[in-house]
Amino acid sequence: KINGDRLWDSLMEMARIGPGVAGGNNRQTLTDADKEGRELFQRWCKEAGLEMGVDKMGTMFARREGTDPEALPVYVGSHLDTQPTGGKYDGVLGVLGGLELVRTLNDLDIKTRHPIVVTNWTNEEGTRFAPAMLASGVFAGVHDLDWAYNREDAKGLKFGDELKRIGWVGEEEVGARKMKAFFELHIEQGPILEAEGKDIGVVTHGQGLWWLEVTLIGKEAHTGSTPMPMRRNAGLGMARMTELVHRIAMSHQPEAVGAIGHCDVHPNSRNVIAGKVVFTIDFRSPNQQTLDAMKARFEEEAPKIAEDLGLTMQIEVVGHFDPVSFDSGCIAAIRNAAARLGYSHRDIVSGAGHDACWVNRLYPTAMVMCPCVDGLSHNEAEDISREWACAGADVLLHAVLETAEI
Amino acid sequence: KINGDRLWDSLMEMARIGPGVAGGNNRQTLTDADKEGRELFQRWCKEAGLEMGVDKMGTMFARREGTDPEALPVYVGSHLDTQPTGGKYDGVLGVLGGLELVRTLNDLDIKTRHPIVVTNWTNEEGTRFAPAMLASGVFAGVHDLDWAYNREDAKGLKFGDELKRIGWVGEEEVGARKMKAFFELHIEQGPILEAEGKDIGVVTHGQGLWWLEVTLIGKEAHTGSTPMPMRRNAGLGMARMTELVHRIAMSHQPEAVGAIGHCDVHPNSRNVIAGKVVFTIDFRSPNQQTLDAMKARFEEEAPKIAEDLGLTMQIEVVGHFDPVSFDSGCIAAIRNAAARLGYSHRDIVSGAGHDACWVNRLYPTAMVMCPCVDGLSHNEAEDISREWACAGADVLLHAVLETAEI
Ligand SMILES: NC(=O)NCCC(=O)O
Ligand SMILES: NC(=O)NCCC(=O)O
Repeated sequence: KINGDRLWDSLMEMARIGPGVAGGNNRQTLTDADKEGRELFQRWCKEAGLEMGVDKMGTMFARREGTDPEALPVYVGSHLDTQPTGGKYDGVLGVLGGLELVRTLNDLDIKTRHPIVVTNWTNEEGTRFAPAMLASGVFAGVHDLDWAYNREDAKGLKFGDELKRIGWVGEEEVGARKMKAFFELHIEQGPILEAEGKDIGVVTHGQGLWWLEVTLIGKEAHTGSTPMPMRRNAGLGMARMTELVHRIAMSHQPEAVGAIGHCDVHPNSRNVIAGKVVFTIDFRSPNQQTLDAMKARFEEEAPKIAEDLGLTMQIEVVGHFDPVSFDSGCIAAIRNAAARLGYSHRDIVSGAGHDACWVNRLYPTAMVMCPCVDGLSHNEAEDISREWACAGADVLLHAVLETAEI
Repeated sequence: KINGDRLWDSLMEMARIGPGVAGGNNRQTLTDADKEGRELFQRWCKEAGLEMGVDKMGTMFARREGTDPEALPVYVGSHLDTQPTGGKYDGVLGVLGGLELVRTLNDLDIKTRHPIVVTNWTNEEGTRFAPAMLASGVFAGVHDLDWAYNREDAKGLKFGDELKRIGWVGEEEVGARKMKAFFELHIEQGPILEAEGKDIGVVTHGQGLWWLEVTLIGKEAHTGSTPMPMRRNAGLGMARMTELVHRIAMSHQPEAVGAIGHCDVHPNSRNVIAGKVVFTIDFRSPNQQTLDAMKARFEEEAPKIAEDLGLTMQIEVVGHFDPVSFDSGCIAAIRNAAARLGYSHRDIVSGAGHDACWVNRLYPTAMVMCPCVDGLSHNEAEDISREWACAGADVLLHAVLETAEI
């Protein structure tokens, strides 16, 4: 078993970097806080005797040698970046759980045939730069490196420039690495495991997603002196489309979800009718047909809303992945590890996207989940118990040991 | 008649300060651009031989002496601050039209019995610091000076601190001045005069207004992994209230208008259900009963929307004035001036709020309006013709001359 105190202490130490305003974290990708988090992780990896590689997307790969120089490494990891008002565990548990696994092997002087590599993927959250899981997406060949470098944040700063600014552009070609397997430990971010009192979720599938960025153009005008029939109110258009997204999601619920979390209103003045709004729709389902039907229905109905209000409309896809089926061998390794260790467990579908979803396109991949309080995530109040974290890391350790061969 | 070229040149010169992004202006109150605009106006006033007084709200009063030392001054003016994406004429025409009037009297060496004072009221627009017409509201005794100083912008900066920062806190007590009358020249900001081909609007009434700042608190949560029934989506609440505001306004239209121009969404991340939104409703009507009924209906129906979605709700009044009836004597002076000069004219109700609305509570007040293209205002594309501006300033000159007595 892993050393629970050490894992917990590391989680708490990382959480001091990029503190939030309500007990959580704001350590968004490629900020100064991200840089500081990377440096701490780098120091810890060095202390654990790992060799660090960094690729051109800034993804960090910390390697523990195996006994067979020819054997492909087993990868573990997740991400250290957070939401603007994020929790202490989303992503971080997977990276530091991987580090703890290596530290435990060092303590016990256990050598594996296959090397083990602990990974910190860049920009998993996708808040500052859409889409989410950007670096693992480039790794998996889904996105071009140049396209990724040109992604812009709300201030117009580019991903590539910001990566350079914090000093984490690596030499290594993205996707150059071969993997025997990839395991990602993550908090569930949903309510099922806690509600059913299960220690471990064996993730068999992941939901697919469409992120649609909608721009509505109306006409800025005075809220007081412009007669109602002359208005072209982009804010009203956004309101109606928010309701449409909700209606679409509810009609497929519980097999689908949908919401709008991001919106920018121009000029955002109390006495000016909004002349322009930009907002992003997030549709998800584990069922490919449902997922695509939601997008199609929005694309069919939204233009009528825009037309009624005299608005012009553009839709851009800023994030997309199909539903994922993880590798049966990796799933079995996780399920067996949980059973062997005596942890209660169940199969589960990931509601969130993860770097594992992209890596799964190339190499055998699966995920271990542990419960989180009230299913709450993307909230500074996100919480897990130490026992849950340890059980998850134990299962990760044993699944990796089985795969990396002692 | 006033000197049209000089008036137009001054308008264009002022418009160079705080340029917008699309040909208009961003010279929001108490910014560096506002400071620069004030300095230019101050220089022009000095060149015209006027004596500048400044009150504790930063309002500028430029005085041309009368022949009777006992006579109360006749005031003219408006505001030099603009919307974030505002036009070149909203407010500015009233201030520089007043200055042009004085320059014309200087040219013609005409003395009036009553002094004439050209005024630049601070923070008319209300975008950066709610409410609108803040300085004239303190002048009229509607707001406390301390309360005004403590108004905060979106960054939490205080009005009082920002006024000090730009160096325009005057010595004079706010409201210490007595007026014989106040005349404000302004662009219509609505479509009526242009549509009817009238040169001049004689403003008899002004709409009343309620600005309600609504805060909805839900719960930040993951857009992917949070089941639909567990969501407390503040963004969806805002959407439904936006529709409610529209429905209320439409049910009283054309005697009322309503919209939401300002909204802030937290944390504004694509994959986080909004945990908090803050937005401002703008309800207006020239009819007191209608105005209050709109507010009452929102206050009755909105809490049900919030409750349905599991949101808590707060409503704060951040702006209010009752419908205004201007002074019959001042109205007659304007109507007579227009008739005398041969300009076509009609009585009109102001859709926007103006400093004149507050001053009218204390002293005889009325307004002159000129048309604007397509009724468009609070938009960088706001436009007027030189002829419209000159006709407005001519009428202002003659109404003032009649009141200030030659
Ligand atoms: N795990 C997680 O929250 N990832 C962010 C990407 C997503 O929105 O699913
Ligand atoms: N004239 C003008 O646009 N004033 C701003 C206050 C208002 O919203 O009516």
